[in-house]
Amino acid sequence: MFPTARLSTGALCLLSAACALTLVSRPAHIVHADSEAAPAYASNGDLLPLKDYREWIYLTSGIDMSYSPKAMEMDHSMFDNVFVNPSAYRSFLATGTWPDKTVMVLEVRGAKSKGSINQRGHFQDTAVMGFEVHVKDEARFPGKWAFFEFDSADKNGTLVPQAAPCYTCHAAHAAVDTTFVQFYPTLLPIAKAKGTLAAVYLKEESATGSK
Amino acid sequence: MFPTARLSTGALCLLSAACALTLVSRPAHIVHADSEAAPAYASNGDLLPLKDYREWIYLTSGIDMSYSPKAMEMDHSMFDNVFVNPSAYRSFLATGTWPDKTVMVLEVRGAKSKGSINQRGHFQDTAVMGFEVHVKDEARFPGKWAFFEFDSADKNGTLVPQAAPCYTCHAAHAAVDTTFVQFYPTLLPIAKAKGTLAAVYLKEESATGSK
Repeated sequence: MFPTARLSTGALCLLSAACALTLVSRPAHIVHADSEAAPAYASNGDLLPLKDYREWIYLTSGIDMSYSPKAMEMDHSMFDNVFVNPSAYRSFLATGTWPDKTVMVLEVRGAKSKGSINQRGHFQDTAVMGFEVHVKDEARFPGKWAFFEFDSADKNGTLVPQAAPCYTCHAAHAAVDTTFVQFYPTLLPIAKAKGTLAAVYLKEESATGSK
Repeated sequence: MFPTARLSTGALCLLSAACALTLVSRPAHIVHADSEAAPAYASNGDLLPLKDYREWIYLTSGIDMSYSPKAMEMDHSMFDNVFVNPSAYRSFLATGTWPDKTVMVLEVRGAKSKGSINQRGHFQDTAVMGFEVHVKDEARFPGKWAFFEFDSADKNGTLVPQAAPCYTCHAAHAAVDTTFVQFYPTLLPIAKAKGTLAAVYLKEESATGSK
């Protein structure tokens, strides 16, 4: 289970703005998904563990990101790493948007500064501090997408209710199909070229002049 | 070509400590390597571009790392992303060390703070600011490994001479087979379990008490 003391909402921005990572200890019936291509679920609706996600396609990393200028200062730093299943990635390269059965993983790791011969800046710690998944499963979820929270990467994930603020925030600010492609450096140019940027995102960028 | 003004040695620590990224404009004969599995070279010894490295296995990211406590403060931050070819990664999982024909890529990206709805911390910019490769090719290089510097990820890379300080530093401080596995969070536990940590690294960790 993740060390809960070091977690904060701010570390989760690359995937799920405004969704706090709640760490719930639950009895878990663990069954590994067999294929990277399709999300798989337990009978209670939990998302099964994604055991090979570190071999999926890497999208980006951030550090200490927050969407609130008044976010509480943390006494530690954390990296976020984002991965997507290879079939969804290849579809995005071709179309500029996500196909059904897209699975995006947010992995949170502590940031260390002094270690080995490193003296400054930050590198990633071995311990995973948080784990969250964003799934596109059009027939299963009313808004096509759903978030799942995990208290460990190798246990089942719990569905985040559709009323949670992460869904609202993603719908209001995400660059492509409710995902934060504006923070994925290799995909943003593709979305621009393919004309798949969301109207809400284009309007927001135009208003802030940061396009 | 990369914008040279923003580069610094400090940003390259995950792969090649003490190797400055020299950005040389050269006439380049560009031929793409066909396979991810084996490094390929031009007739002049240059390393051919690694066009699909973003689909390789991600190892880690750092930000503003430096091995010198007196490193010059930069007026900007930079992320380093490290990738390895999948066949070498799978071999490492099984053995705790790198096979012949391992290819490791260091990609440097600018770190932005304000952008879209992000207010704090850093996310990665679309522009690649530096690109460097570490290759294990036992029959080709006297020390089995070599560094190559690129002035663009899609042009050929130039061999870094074996007398350069990066080779010395890697030999003196790297955790596994002259590579900085101590900064690769998913691989360090494997090297520990397989007993493949270098004697120089173990001695250094023992001396600093940071093991």
